Amino acid sequence: MDTRIKAGGRSAKPYEHNRARMLISCPDGPGIVAAVSHFLHQHGANIVQSDQYTMDPEGGMFFMRIEFDLEQLADRVAGLKADFQTIADKFEMQWNLYPLSQKKKIAILVSKEDHCLVELLWHWQAGDLDADISMVISNHPDMKEYVESFGIPYYHIPVTPDTKAEAERKQLEIINGKVDLIVLARYMQIVSPSLIEPYRNRIINIHHSFLPAFVGGKPYAQAYDRGVKIIGATAHYVTEELDGGPIIEQDVQRVSHRDDVSELKRIGRTIERVVLARAVKWHIEDRILVHQNKTVVFI
Amino acid sequence: MDTRIKAGGRSAKPYEHNRARMLISCPDGPGIVAAVSHFLHQHGANIVQSDQYTMDPEGGMFFMRIEFDLEQLADRVAGLKADFQTIADKFEMQWNLYPLSQKKKIAILVSKEDHCLVELLWHWQAGDLDADISMVISNHPDMKEYVESFGIPYYHIPVTPDTKAEAERKQLEIINGKVDLIVLARYMQIVSPSLIEPYRNRIINIHHSFLPAFVGGKPYAQAYDRGVKIIGATAHYVTEELDGGPIIEQDVQRVSHRDDVSELKRIGRTIERVVLARAVKWHIEDRILVHQNKTVVFI
Amino acid sequence: MDTRIKAGGRSAKPYEHNRARMLISCPDGPGIVAAVSHFLHQHGANIVQSDQYTMDPEGGMFFMRIEFDLEQLADRVAGLKADFQTIADKFEMQWNLYPLSQKKKIAILVSKEDHCLVELLWHWQAGDLDADISMVISNHPDMKEYVESFGIPYYHIPVTPDTKAEAERKQLEIINGKVDLIVLARYMQIVSPSLIEPYRNRIINIHHSFLPAFVGGKPYAQAYDRGVKIIGATAHYVTEELDGGPIIEQDVQRVSHRDDVSELKRIGRTIERVVLARAVKWHIEDRILVHQNKTVVFI
Amino acid sequence: MDTRIKAGGRSAKPYEHNRARMLISCPDGPGIVAAVSHFLHQHGANIVQSDQYTMDPEGGMFFMRIEFDLEQLADRVAGLKADFQTIADKFEMQWNLYPLSQKKKIAILVSKEDHCLVELLWHWQAGDLDADISMVISNHPDMKEYVESFGIPYYHIPVTPDTKAEAERKQLEIINGKVDLIVLARYMQIVSPSLIEPYRNRIINIHHSFLPAFVGGKPYAQAYDRGVKIIGATAHYVTEELDGGPIIEQDVQRVSHRDDVSELKRIGRTIERVVLARAVKWHIEDRILVHQNKTVVFI
Repeated sequence: MDTRIKAGGRSAKPYEHNRARMLISCPDGPGIVAAVSHFLHQHGANIVQSDQYTMDPEGGMFFMRIEFDLEQLADRVAGLKADFQTIADKFEMQWNLYPLSQKKKIAILVSKEDHCLVELLWHWQAGDLDADISMVISNHPDMKEYVESFGIPYYHIPVTPDTKAEAERKQLEIINGKVDLIVLARYMQIVSPSLIEPYRNRIINIHHSFLPAFVGGKPYAQAYDRGVKIIGATAHYVTEELDGGPIIEQDVQRVSHRDDVSELKRIGRTIERVVLARAVKWHIEDRILVHQNKTVVFI
Repeated sequence: MDTRIKAGGRSAKPYEHNRARMLISCPDGPGIVAAVSHFLHQHGANIVQSDQYTMDPEGGMFFMRIEFDLEQLADRVAGLKADFQTIADKFEMQWNLYPLSQKKKIAILVSKEDHCLVELLWHWQAGDLDADISMVISNHPDMKEYVESFGIPYYHIPVTPDTKAEAERKQLEIINGKVDLIVLARYMQIVSPSLIEPYRNRIINIHHSFLPAFVGGKPYAQAYDRGVKIIGATAHYVTEELDGGPIIEQDVQRVSHRDDVSELKRIGRTIERVVLARAVKWHIEDRILVHQNKTVVFI
Repeated sequence: MDTRIKAGGRSAKPYEHNRARMLISCPDGPGIVAAVSHFLHQHGANIVQSDQYTMDPEGGMFFMRIEFDLEQLADRVAGLKADFQTIADKFEMQWNLYPLSQKKKIAILVSKEDHCLVELLWHWQAGDLDADISMVISNHPDMKEYVESFGIPYYHIPVTPDTKAEAERKQLEIINGKVDLIVLARYMQIVSPSLIEPYRNRIINIHHSFLPAFVGGKPYAQAYDRGVKIIGATAHYVTEELDGGPIIEQDVQRVSHRDDVSELKRIGRTIERVVLARAVKWHIEDRILVHQNKTVVFI
Repeated sequence: MDTRIKAGGRSAKPYEHNRARMLISCPDGPGIVAAVSHFLHQHGANIVQSDQYTMDPEGGMFFMRIEFDLEQLADRVAGLKADFQTIADKFEMQWNLYPLSQKKKIAILVSKEDHCLVELLWHWQAGDLDADISMVISNHPDMKEYVESFGIPYYHIPVTPDTKAEAERKQLEIINGKVDLIVLARYMQIVSPSLIEPYRNRIINIHHSFLPAFVGGKPYAQAYDRGVKIIGATAHYVTEELDGGPIIEQDVQRVSHRDDVSELKRIGRTIERVVLARAVKWHIEDRILVHQNKTVVFI
């Protein structure tokens, strides 16, 4: 039996049924860590991991990620959240609590290039991406059979200048409220603003990056003409400003004059898939907080 | 006036007069973070940075690094430490508290190769190493004039098979109790066991590293013969087992068949100085905890 | 239609029909480059790429890789080779000539872990691996359906202590003389010596690498216990000495104390697939020469 | 005796007295390698290293670097050059021949930041930079004593808006014709166009680089605000377009949200000095050819 094709995601490790993560952002001030850790201790939770960071020690923002275990979490999570709101109000916190047993649902959007999609599916199959891939949406039909062989629904929504509005309406209808995270895995269309607002800091895009950046079309050809020695890729959250949202992860690889434009693109694809997979994994593991146009990533 | 030669170290930033760091290791259990953060809050301290890590969630060790500000720290540090001992006893903590105003004192030991020494002095001159370099000790006289031009005492202690015991006695006399950290900056002699014990986890050594490792003499020649594609360096704390102590930092660089043995050595020197400088910086900034033969480095 | 599943390899670029590569090793001496380039020029060939390297300028070995175009290559290659033998004899050359139109045939051997196999198939599908994958052989049946969906034959040859000899005999029968390259893509069995001899410098293996190396079992657990900061992978040609053959490529990734043994293994898998894919690509592109236990890789 | 301060550069290895390098660029065509290698063989030269590269196989440019030994080179170099001109004319070559015994002379220009200057002097002292450092020129007096301690002349030429023209005239007078290479080691002034023309592809500059690039002032602050995860540096030849010349080398380092603006600058300095040192070394070793706005670097 081919376990690879049939199996998906991974089964939870036993301890994860009672594990949860909190992400907190608030203006810095005395007593925050004490209040939060005292609260958790009082409620019987055991902190297994905790990260804090203060941006600008003089009057800046405070960020915190806590991973904790609590017996019978499922029954107690609603009460825990209600109780915590008092502390959150006192320190003007923005916060979230994610039980690990509630897996995040992902929609992947893809066009013709398959390398990022294949990578994400491989990580998911290998059990390295602790989430549900709920759907793949594409403006092309090419990957339908491949995606469905994993048991994942595939929606083909063609996009043409004439049908753009209608296509966006369909996308919104299929996605909105159904998933927790949208991944643009080389989706070569602009995402509708009507998706960006409800999915703020929950849409991840990947694109190539260069030192220096090249303005205008055909960036790989420009990079080749300038003889760059390093090319890279950037994963970021999508905002209304094209490619201008908070950066989650970047990586690079050395190239040389021997690499022609098609080789540069090939190398670029390899970096893109690695960087996107890391960014998605970190989001799924609640490692990323966003402040203004910047991420704090606790890894 | 040549400010570079005359000036040393750097002046403290104003906020640092009231800043301190704590390093804590103890068996994991509920309530540790709550107890520590509550204690600091009660005493009027404001946590500006905090890292925790639990090794093995089921009954493992807990590690914590806290950076905090406290008004009039100098007057209150003794009382703070005395008060904290109650918490430390309860959780069986090993702990230390380091006010930033008490700069660590460093002894650098060096033989003939100067690259690691030059690097450390450059970082120190640039204000990137917040410590005092109290002395340089060498079994060769070569660097005397250079080191003294920075205003740093230089002790020339020749080591021969006959004079080894006497040399070690002299070293111990000059160093012991006078410095907080010993850096072996390509010191090609075995360090006396009588230094290792009082300076456990406070002696940093640097040496070359290869994938795979090569046993026996002339490792660069062996690496060349095997055609390795990557060479590296490892900084570690010195233990009784030669080159077997807890690893602090490692880095590597790509090489190719074109690099002959002397070029491999040249590249190796560049990696060594970068890796050693990072390890020393992290030690000075109290970022390293040691458990058994392993470091936890909070960066 | 799902082009991804059905299509395989890539179609040749037009210029490649008349392109060939030569690999030459011989004792260094005056006039080699002149003789070879004069020969090719005389025969109407145009050199498009050439690399040379002399190991040890005083009486060492000379290595050369030439890529050239020749009109109507297919009709003339036999004559070209016959003519070249005079030069080869004069300089005591070991040499090969590979027309690009004769694609190399690959056998991939795999056990249960699929990451290296998936990676190679993805590169092949994407047209980045200019070879034919003739077969996949495994001691487990798990990947059968997946591999066959690419139209590639899959041979399941179980290996037990009792059937080892018989299994090796079957393997040899299926592989020997049918393929140009054998790739051990996490094949967890010792390869039969009867395969090593006919496929000298044509069997590529991948394995994890550490700084420092760890002797004995469970290397990831040992690496974790020692707190290594970098882990890596090495691709090498297989020789009679286990994991001791000429190194083709290596790469590494940073890790930290936060990475437990299973996370180290996960990172290790990602490095392994990247390193193996590079090594296979370079072999396919005739970029690797072997001398004694060392590779010269012209990239 | 302090050999470090007094000694400079390095003594030539014996074989280098008869060694030379050629750099050749020309339109690609059949017979170039044959003609050059035949010429050298005829004249009794032995090629010890050779690299070629054809940019765009269909009608593109051809680049070649040859390193060869020739008995009694000093006496024969003039004749060799004269003889070679026939071949050069036939293939429309741009070419140069550099005997290793004629060390290149370097002028280093520096402002207040000393990290790049210190790095270059360290490599030079260590014997890794096979050139003469003929002078250091600065618009500040700070480094005078330090530079002169190496026995290198230091020219302090202040630059103010009023004295700019006069300062450039002085620089030109001191430099022009006296050195082979100008290195801008964090020289924070625009170089006079009257220097760029005679020193085309012989002035190396270093500057920070980011993914993405940031337009306008305070790039490190912008990089911090955007939360970049990688920062870098680029070494390039100086052209009339500010920071737009051919890229020689680039490198990067990972950063995180924990690195504030001053830490980013500190890391940036470390990358700058490594990248600049490599670029200067490669220029000195005649490894760089320039075509249009792009380098071919044979390493």
